[in-house]
Amino acid sequence: MFTLHPQLQKDCIELGRFDLCRLLLMNDSRYPWCILVPEREDIREIYELSPADQLLLLDESVRLGRYMTAEFRAHKLNVAALGNMVPQLHVHHIARYSHDPAWPRPVWGLDEARPYDEEGLRAMQARFGLLLEG
Amino acid sequence: MFTLHPQLQKDCIELGRFDLCRLLLMNDSRYPWCILVPEREDIREIYELSPADQLLLLDESVRLGRYMTAEFRAHKLNVAALGNMVPQLHVHHIARYSHDPAWPRPVWGLDEARPYDEEGLRAMQARFGLLLEG
Repeated sequence: MFTLHPQLQKDCIELGRFDLCRLLLMNDSRYPWCILVPEREDIREIYELSPADQLLLLDESVRLGRYMTAEFRAHKLNVAALGNMVPQLHVHHIARYSHDPAWPRPVWGLDEARPYDEEGLRAMQARFGLLLEG
Repeated sequence: MFTLHPQLQKDCIELGRFDLCRLLLMNDSRYPWCILVPEREDIREIYELSPADQLLLLDESVRLGRYMTAEFRAHKLNVAALGNMVPQLHVHHIARYSHDPAWPRPVWGLDEARPYDEEGLRAMQARFGLLLEG
């Protein structure tokens, strides 16, 4: 049975579900930062997914990436499956700006996350509602 | 017409070509590190590729990732499309080890690259020969 890795549970807020993936919001208001987690047991790498699941992941990643870039008017999208700390397959989608605190470096491991306040979180949930309904 | 971004030309060695992508080796012997560059003009994001090209990219990425993990007995694969410095779409594939110099952090922006010597480069080209013929 699929269970979300405890570190992702701790760092993220669940926004909803696609056919394959759980959609998480990283609780770090410095960047619009989502994570897709295929709800499959014991998968660490994209190539370990079945061919059908690989296509679902591609489709969900493309939909999410296009949506985030438009919705947040991002200058660049970062998409990455790393997993050095959390081996459960998860794919980061981060809307980047040339004025964001990490630019042009990657966002990982730089200073502390800045959690959303209640209002900020509600606003983000609303902004992803349309994507999840579509 | 597609032209490889000058920074990728400078940092990498061409290993060969798949149907969609040029396969590059990052000239940094600290990590087995390949880059796939779809040979399409003016593409910055995966979702900007045509649906058919997205499938090709997925297929080539999956083949490369599976091959690298097995061939280099990697502990983890890192796959990432960032593009903050080089906007031309390119997808990193890095074989990671729990004893490599950056672990568990991402590899980007840490110290100077350590270029291959002639012998090391020939060995890498040979190791990717089988993948490109297959």
